[in-house]
Amino acid sequence: MTVDAARTAGTDHRAVIGIDFGTLSGRAVVVRVADGAELGDAVHEYSHGVLDQALPTGDPLPHDWALQVPADYLEVLRSAAPKALVASGLTQDDIIGIATDFTACTVLPTLADGTPLSEIADLRRRPHAYVKLWKHHAAQPHADRINALAHERGEPWISRYGGKLSSEWELAKGLQLFEEDPEVYARTERWVEAADWIVWKLCGRYVRNICTAGYKAVLQDGRYPSPEFLAALAPGFETFFTDKVMQPLAQLGGRAGGLTEEAARWTGLRPGIAVAVGNVDAHVTSPAAKAVAPGQMLAVMGTSTCHVMNADHLAEVPGMCGVVRDGITPGLWGYEAGQSGVGDIFAWFTRTSVAGEYVTRADELGLGLHEHLTNLAARQAVGEHGLVVLDWHSGNRSVLVDHELSGLVVGLTLATRPEDVYRAILESTAFGTRKIIESFEAAGLPVTELVVAGGLLKNRFLMQIYADVTRRPLSLLASPQGPALGSAIHAAVAAGAYPDVYAASEAMGRKQEAAFLPDPKRAAAYDPLYAEYARLHDALGPDDGALGGLMHRLRDIKGRAGAK
Amino acid sequence: MTVDAARTAGTDHRAVIGIDFGTLSGRAVVVRVADGAELGDAVHEYSHGVLDQALPTGDPLPHDWALQVPADYLEVLRSAAPKALVASGLTQDDIIGIATDFTACTVLPTLADGTPLSEIADLRRRPHAYVKLWKHHAAQPHADRINALAHERGEPWISRYGGKLSSEWELAKGLQLFEEDPEVYARTERWVEAADWIVWKLCGRYVRNICTAGYKAVLQDGRYPSPEFLAALAPGFETFFTDKVMQPLAQLGGRAGGLTEEAARWTGLRPGIAVAVGNVDAHVTSPAAKAVAPGQMLAVMGTSTCHVMNADHLAEVPGMCGVVRDGITPGLWGYEAGQSGVGDIFAWFTRTSVAGEYVTRADELGLGLHEHLTNLAARQAVGEHGLVVLDWHSGNRSVLVDHELSGLVVGLTLATRPEDVYRAILESTAFGTRKIIESFEAAGLPVTELVVAGGLLKNRFLMQIYADVTRRPLSLLASPQGPALGSAIHAAVAAGAYPDVYAASEAMGRKQEAAFLPDPKRAAAYDPLYAEYARLHDALGPDDGALGGLMHRLRDIKGRAGAK
Repeated sequence: MTVDAARTAGTDHRAVIGIDFGTLSGRAVVVRVADGAELGDAVHEYSHGVLDQALPTGDPLPHDWALQVPADYLEVLRSAAPKALVASGLTQDDIIGIATDFTACTVLPTLADGTPLSEIADLRRRPHAYVKLWKHHAAQPHADRINALAHERGEPWISRYGGKLSSEWELAKGLQLFEEDPEVYARTERWVEAADWIVWKLCGRYVRNICTAGYKAVLQDGRYPSPEFLAALAPGFETFFTDKVMQPLAQLGGRAGGLTEEAARWTGLRPGIAVAVGNVDAHVTSPAAKAVAPGQMLAVMGTSTCHVMNADHLAEVPGMCGVVRDGITPGLWGYEAGQSGVGDIFAWFTRTSVAGEYVTRADELGLGLHEHLTNLAARQAVGEHGLVVLDWHSGNRSVLVDHELSGLVVGLTLATRPEDVYRAILESTAFGTRKIIESFEAAGLPVTELVVAGGLLKNRFLMQIYADVTRRPLSLLASPQGPALGSAIHAAVAAGAYPDVYAASEAMGRKQEAAFLPDPKRAAAYDPLYAEYARLHDALGPDDGALGGLMHRLRDIKGRAGAK
Repeated sequence: MTVDAARTAGTDHRAVIGIDFGTLSGRAVVVRVADGAELGDAVHEYSHGVLDQALPTGDPLPHDWALQVPADYLEVLRSAAPKALVASGLTQDDIIGIATDFTACTVLPTLADGTPLSEIADLRRRPHAYVKLWKHHAAQPHADRINALAHERGEPWISRYGGKLSSEWELAKGLQLFEEDPEVYARTERWVEAADWIVWKLCGRYVRNICTAGYKAVLQDGRYPSPEFLAALAPGFETFFTDKVMQPLAQLGGRAGGLTEEAARWTGLRPGIAVAVGNVDAHVTSPAAKAVAPGQMLAVMGTSTCHVMNADHLAEVPGMCGVVRDGITPGLWGYEAGQSGVGDIFAWFTRTSVAGEYVTRADELGLGLHEHLTNLAARQAVGEHGLVVLDWHSGNRSVLVDHELSGLVVGLTLATRPEDVYRAILESTAFGTRKIIESFEAAGLPVTELVVAGGLLKNRFLMQIYADVTRRPLSLLASPQGPALGSAIHAAVAAGAYPDVYAASEAMGRKQEAAFLPDPKRAAAYDPLYAEYARLHDALGPDDGALGGLMHRLRDIKGRAGAK
């Protein structure tokens, strides 16, 4: 049944609610089960936002910390959910299920009943009692030790994560807790992904979703890292997984339980409706964008880019972030890769490196600076600027897995203009995506379509560059609410409206198919530029490259000079 | 006798006049013979400036052309010279000699009596009849053929010019004339350096100065390139040197003749006073800055940097611009090297790549943008920005001799600020100078002191960087009129007031000795940054470097894309 047909028929009013918990706010969307039509939505900003300077008590935080307050998440349930329902024009009787997705790895210590330690009176001034947000980066030394030891011991799971676990994940953050605040660690009865904690609050049952268990907690082939590994890491830490992490697992799209009376009061929904297993914002977007078949790579493009793609077999792709069985949708191997910096490099450039006259001119034209630079850049032929950029301003997640790399520009002349560098930066991120695609294909995983979600899909010029550079048809998620729509799809499956996520995605997902096609002439013109990008990549990226280590040495020099 | 003693004594009023012919104007300075005191000066701007769009007749010029009108130079004699005399408070009876220096290679076609072809009625609309200014770059294809053929034939002189003659020099410009306008070439009876033409106009005698004959007309060991070489270049061109270039030679500081009655009327000076042999602006500055002994390297730092240094023996320094016996001062071997872009890279960066808020803030502080960025950059410790720049935005003159290279920045992060890149650019030009110094030393020519002249010496922070990076005491020319003072010194020698340029330099030159000394801690901190610069230099500069050819390929891509 098509969307129009369902609307016309008007016979099936059933709807679900999807809630996307982002970094600064939560967004609830009411979605019709029959066709995925978005009927109403509401946003609620977290009262405490991100704690990166001080606790709510005023106690200061060290550099690189990023915490949150769990009560803020419940506020979203109390505020955004009922508002979205009102906006939809439906009643609670129409809503058959609810599902959520979360940033990850965002993790908190709780008691066995789910009470966050930060809500226990004598722990309110202890930073380690709070939610550690995904971008809490203070556990890097712990991650470094974990990775070194994993390679030393030849742990089999390390190759499933491109050879490196991130400092953002559960193990590094847990080790930091263990070593820096043993008392809070001792009182931690559960080390819970926020993605699962919110579901626990909705249905009263704690189940671990397969996605974060695999990508963020190193669960591979049914096993977490061994107690022996943990003991070698830090004596006393060996029971971390067995005591605090292990929990019954649940497939994505599964029913975690029924909505509790309490949660029904918060949300204005009926008690007992299906609550879906928790999920992650990027991964949950795949079915929303109809990008769940093997070969359909979803790129969620914002300040950074997250790539997720299914395949029907296991392969080890050098430099990927992780591969998890059932990690995106059940029955397939879910692969994740990423680019550390994309939109944030564009933003940095326009903020710092563009002469004021461009801002003035953009104002005169009634344009934003990005738009003005894009228009100027779009007039050029491919390669006309003579520049190549390495897009490593905040490191390289895939395929080099090295956050200590840095950005490079080559080809500058006295005639180089801001729009030239801007275009070269846009192109460099497309080259980075092409490198990732080529790595997947070299590992035996064909990539046949690129599906784009996220804020950057609005830049049509950028999208055309990606189509041309990757020589792939480029489709767009045709909804501004990607993750919330993806959650809604999972709610529909959990409520039994569809047999599985694939069927629900087919009916409810929204994709603008092949919105951009590669232009053969431009694609051919990009090849020699990409070849130079690849040469620089291979010379400066790996330690054994011709200029390998140069960027690390510059960081060391910077560090020794006392820079932050 | 010290300057003060001479002033106090007040017994020797004799003075000379030095005139510096720059790119846009001529400057006359009256200088006391006894101590070099500058008594009066005046500037006259050329009426026609630089012709790079059209002839005075309105006829348009192609891209890369840069011409001048010879009558503009005579205007300087008529205007600036008498004004400077008035400003000095002296009378014509006090002036015992006159000398001039010129940009080079700036060259014009004339009749046998010195009449410029552009002044002949039927040639006024012919671009090739005009003065070709040093920065006329339309003869690059001709230079490329000259260099290829010289290497093919194993011409001995090519190694005295770092393996490449410049498109700016007499031979390439002459070949362009020969091939593009055979009629004007046929009517060219002399192919004259403007440096010699102006002296011809002053004293009525045409002598070629050793300096431009060597550096710009390939005169080595008393010989110009052979007729066989010229014939192989272009049939019919074999008599270029014998018919149009050859002329009696004269040493720098020599007397070319006496001031003619006509030139005396123009200048307001006495007929018959000594007119010195012509000279070049950079080279003539060496005695003004007391940088004439072997090991004293003069760096004239402006939009680009020209390095000149004497040595007592011949060596072949890879990548130098040229080495000429007696080329800077008689009796020594004069070496020249250069950096294609210095101040112009600073200017390009501030013009294009600095956010408007910096301009606003500089305004609030009552500072120029350069000054504001310098102040911000100066607060940093060495290496704190974590950046390295290759200063090749307009190519690399020494030691790579490659104008098709381009600029590079590495180490960029999302925290990089404009003052960081600005400082890294300043440093990169100091690294470029260090590379040149190291090349000289590796060839057996010690460099013991760096003496700076030119507009950039006002930036004290930049000067300290150069002292630290090169680990050399850095002296400054202590006069704002470097070339004109240098000319005045030559005038004094030509008039017989001193036995030679060395004695005149000692008495009349003005140097702030060791104005900046290297700080050992900062010098040590720069070493690892310079090491990375050198690695990038060697990887990207030579064709056989690890990334050799990359910048050329980017230029080719740009060219194919139809960019100018």
